Amino acid sequence: MLKEAIYHRPKNNYAYAYNSSTLHIRLRTKKDDVDAVKVIFGDPYTWEKDIWQYSKSLMLKEGSDDLFDYWLIEVEPEFRRLRYGFELTDGKETLFYTERGFYKDVPKHTGYYFCFPFLNGIDVFTAPDWVKDTVWYQIFPERFGNGDASNDPSGVLPWGSEAPQPTSQFGGDLQGVIDHLDHLSDLGINGIYFTPIFTATSNHKYDTVDYFHIDPQFGDEKVLKQLINECHKRGIKIMLDAVFNHCGYYFEPFQDVLKKGKDSKYWDWFHIKDWPIQTDPKPNYDTFAFTPFMPKFNTENQEVKEYLLKVGTYWVEEFDIDGWRLDVANEVDHSFWRSFRSEVKRIKPDLYILGEIWHDSMPWLQGDQFDAVMNYRFTTAALDFIAKDKIDKQDFKDEVMNVLSSYPHSVNEVAFNLLGSHDTPRVLTECGGHKEKLKLLYALQMTFPGSPCVYYGDEIGMEGDNDPGCRACMVWEKDKQDLDLMHGLKKLINLRHRNTTLGSNGRVVFEDSPNKHVLRYKKVGSREQFLVVLNVSDQSAVEKVPEGYDVWNDKVLAEQHLSLQPWEFCILKLK
Amino acid sequence: MLKEAIYHRPKNNYAYAYNSSTLHIRLRTKKDDVDAVKVIFGDPYTWEKDIWQYSKSLMLKEGSDDLFDYWLIEVEPEFRRLRYGFELTDGKETLFYTERGFYKDVPKHTGYYFCFPFLNGIDVFTAPDWVKDTVWYQIFPERFGNGDASNDPSGVLPWGSEAPQPTSQFGGDLQGVIDHLDHLSDLGINGIYFTPIFTATSNHKYDTVDYFHIDPQFGDEKVLKQLINECHKRGIKIMLDAVFNHCGYYFEPFQDVLKKGKDSKYWDWFHIKDWPIQTDPKPNYDTFAFTPFMPKFNTENQEVKEYLLKVGTYWVEEFDIDGWRLDVANEVDHSFWRSFRSEVKRIKPDLYILGEIWHDSMPWLQGDQFDAVMNYRFTTAALDFIAKDKIDKQDFKDEVMNVLSSYPHSVNEVAFNLLGSHDTPRVLTECGGHKEKLKLLYALQMTFPGSPCVYYGDEIGMEGDNDPGCRACMVWEKDKQDLDLMHGLKKLINLRHRNTTLGSNGRVVFEDSPNKHVLRYKKVGSREQFLVVLNVSDQSAVEKVPEGYDVWNDKVLAEQHLSLQPWEFCILKLK
Repeated sequence: MLKEAIYHRPKNNYAYAYNSSTLHIRLRTKKDDVDAVKVIFGDPYTWEKDIWQYSKSLMLKEGSDDLFDYWLIEVEPEFRRLRYGFELTDGKETLFYTERGFYKDVPKHTGYYFCFPFLNGIDVFTAPDWVKDTVWYQIFPERFGNGDASNDPSGVLPWGSEAPQPTSQFGGDLQGVIDHLDHLSDLGINGIYFTPIFTATSNHKYDTVDYFHIDPQFGDEKVLKQLINECHKRGIKIMLDAVFNHCGYYFEPFQDVLKKGKDSKYWDWFHIKDWPIQTDPKPNYDTFAFTPFMPKFNTENQEVKEYLLKVGTYWVEEFDIDGWRLDVANEVDHSFWRSFRSEVKRIKPDLYILGEIWHDSMPWLQGDQFDAVMNYRFTTAALDFIAKDKIDKQDFKDEVMNVLSSYPHSVNEVAFNLLGSHDTPRVLTECGGHKEKLKLLYALQMTFPGSPCVYYGDEIGMEGDNDPGCRACMVWEKDKQDLDLMHGLKKLINLRHRNTTLGSNGRVVFEDSPNKHVLRYKKVGSREQFLVVLNVSDQSAVEKVPEGYDVWNDKVLAEQHLSLQPWEFCILKLK
Repeated sequence: MLKEAIYHRPKNNYAYAYNSSTLHIRLRTKKDDVDAVKVIFGDPYTWEKDIWQYSKSLMLKEGSDDLFDYWLIEVEPEFRRLRYGFELTDGKETLFYTERGFYKDVPKHTGYYFCFPFLNGIDVFTAPDWVKDTVWYQIFPERFGNGDASNDPSGVLPWGSEAPQPTSQFGGDLQGVIDHLDHLSDLGINGIYFTPIFTATSNHKYDTVDYFHIDPQFGDEKVLKQLINECHKRGIKIMLDAVFNHCGYYFEPFQDVLKKGKDSKYWDWFHIKDWPIQTDPKPNYDTFAFTPFMPKFNTENQEVKEYLLKVGTYWVEEFDIDGWRLDVANEVDHSFWRSFRSEVKRIKPDLYILGEIWHDSMPWLQGDQFDAVMNYRFTTAALDFIAKDKIDKQDFKDEVMNVLSSYPHSVNEVAFNLLGSHDTPRVLTECGGHKEKLKLLYALQMTFPGSPCVYYGDEIGMEGDNDPGCRACMVWEKDKQDLDLMHGLKKLINLRHRNTTLGSNGRVVFEDSPNKHVLRYKKVGSREQFLVVLNVSDQSAVEKVPEGYDVWNDKVLAEQHLSLQPWEFCILKLK
């Protein structure tokens, strides 16, 4: 048994409170190295005649990646306290693994064992219930719909008249969104994520100038209220984008510092490295990346903190928004986010907090900060496999299992699963324009645990490279929309809505297939199971499938050898 | 190269901010498997012509345990942001290890790399500066000195007249501590940790009845003020013991619930599982362990939280205490401790917060909760090796390196290193009465990073088994004190005070020795080095030592073969 591969440490993805009464305990071992793992567990204080009283239970092998197997068990400790260790067996030996290391005999004293000292409800990672049943639609407001010509900026370009440039303006606004809500409802969307809508200079509005007002080019607070009302009536949640890492150059406090230097009462709102402040040739203050027009906030300054928390609560309290997406969330201090969470959740306990983090995010997902991060690791794996043929099926399965194992189940259930955004090329472009690949990607996304998001226009086959290419005007002319693509997506979304096991209520269990390019996975729910089969290939393939109901093609299937056309997929509800 | 053994994950002991400008990055590899590790690192936003700009630096092998080598590097990122990965080489191959796994060629895009997104000062683990220069003395007030007969409880036993029983009372009090401060000052003590002194029923006072008053058997607030003044004049810090996991049975709010049941306004202050509340035959409310007279607090209840936070701040604000030791700290919610830290540090930023946790404690030592935990892992390793001959030298070194590698350096520097407490047998008893072993243990403890603590009476050779044995009355008769032991300890404490490299300013680097029972380690400071050599054996041993000054025996040593008597040690300041 390879001891060096065996890993466990409590209070992260390896041991966490799944809910207020249940603990999840996981163990990592070298791939295919261990035959069975039992967890040895008991209350730390339950002794009889000086002997600690424990139980043993078999762990489930949840999955594997290229190097490791991952084992899981659910435990409900009667007194909410747990000491535990592991009994590992392969063909040759049995080893006991505890906090103090490996033993050949079972250690008798609790002091050796791992500890989950008490399951305190307030520390449990708890995301809003509604998130896992939500299918998001991301809107870049300047480019979705122009519903009110009166707020168009000067120099506005005719809608869709040309490819977008970094500073193009096409006049999109909130009224444009209201006008097109039927499109979203029809698709089955029940959440909108808006990139920033507060007053700012750029067309993307990530350089906020006024955190308390809607950008006049997009409308005003009245229109936003109307939009939110309309959405809520339709059962659509609203998530806004908060840029708290930095402000825009023209944000008044920053302008005041530019004018008055150290005499400004706002001098400590930013990270000014020396005086006088200068922006040329290089800024001598901290910025987002090296962008002088995005000065980084000093969120450790109490006034800044209070100001931004006020922003955070204001839009929840006054406009009843349902979520905040937090821009460049990883560069802001944890202490700020803890206060942010407690403040906004005080007003609206089921508000969704989504951080923009592209890398491993466990430190932000412990229950005290965010509910989710933008799951770009899912994006990359899905695109590399299906869109780009850059990795093979095994790599894809390894990467997916690695991501899923990196976080608690409760985190995975509300992960923000996107195929693209305003910060990436459009997914169809990533597919090289190959729409069958995109359909497979949608099938994958809509049958995956988490909260999927569709980037505006992707559903009708829009293409576009990295910013600014991916930010073109939404195409509203029916004859220029790919309605076949859209109807397919709509069907998938509706399947997901009707069968929550396809979504976050189903655990992903990969299956083997004799066909190199056919991806198979079960979605295992508490009362039902689905089988998803994707033929990621331009060759047809025959797959043996069990009896079930093909919910995609709406027909009963006997156990059979199913023939899948190139790029075809099927979704079977198993008998 | 054994990939399965290689481990890194940011924002814990593997990557952390050591201070507001410095990051520590660590990597774990299989023992003796890798020849060299370089870290590849750069600012995430520093690109030239689409190529990420990074540097490379060699990592230092900090140490090893039975399975792994641990590598470290210090980095000061100019813009406080870092992306990084590792280049590992053995005789045969070079591998690049990143967040996305292993590669044969260096990945070009930052997206592959580990991320420490921003070094925000407020998130940095920062313990008070004074702690690492403090040598503590733990006092169990009922048993240290009886300075005021007028507050003796009825049925008080004559001081030291018999072995303590679970409910014995001997009349120790705060005046008794004041009377004996010279003893502490003489020993070189500059911190006192008091087990609880607030009104309670038991003699150990862990069943608090009144959090706002000194137990009348110990004195009153006036005496405490006098004691603290006296101590502060002598440069001695004061740490009190806060029992926030549970209260005592006679705590008024709990009595109110017992009386009024669900009509009590305090009904939600505890975890009552069903009504009516009962204590017999088994309590139907959560308790510490299964002890009915210690009802567990519901620290999620806002009133409870505010009440206990008020306790936390009251004694700091009104009595200027310097530290809080937190009883059963691991079973109270993290959310409470975060508020606790922010409240007490608001009043006294350099207050020391010490949690009672016996197991792996990283989740409490991230900078947002505690400054330290009681380092029982150090205790166990030291006793098992020196006192009990239960593990050999290699096991000891492995365990010590494992503990040190489990935490940031900044955490290790203020770890509360004890050899025993009111909850364990006395250290001399653990040594089987063997005083030479105890002297070696003191030599180890006083030359180890952290904040050492002496349990009252251990310094004069008191013995005693587990509670109640370890809680006997302090022996004040000079002729019954082991003054030789005490003078040895005093000398060690003074050496530590005069040479901070012997303490937390020196890194432990184990050295090999040809003698199986001789433990050698260097203490490596920024400007000086010490060599500690302990002969853990009843056989004499010859050790080759370099030129230096023997600070223990006060003499210059040339490079030589040094003869160590059984159980002898020496401490050399290297040239």
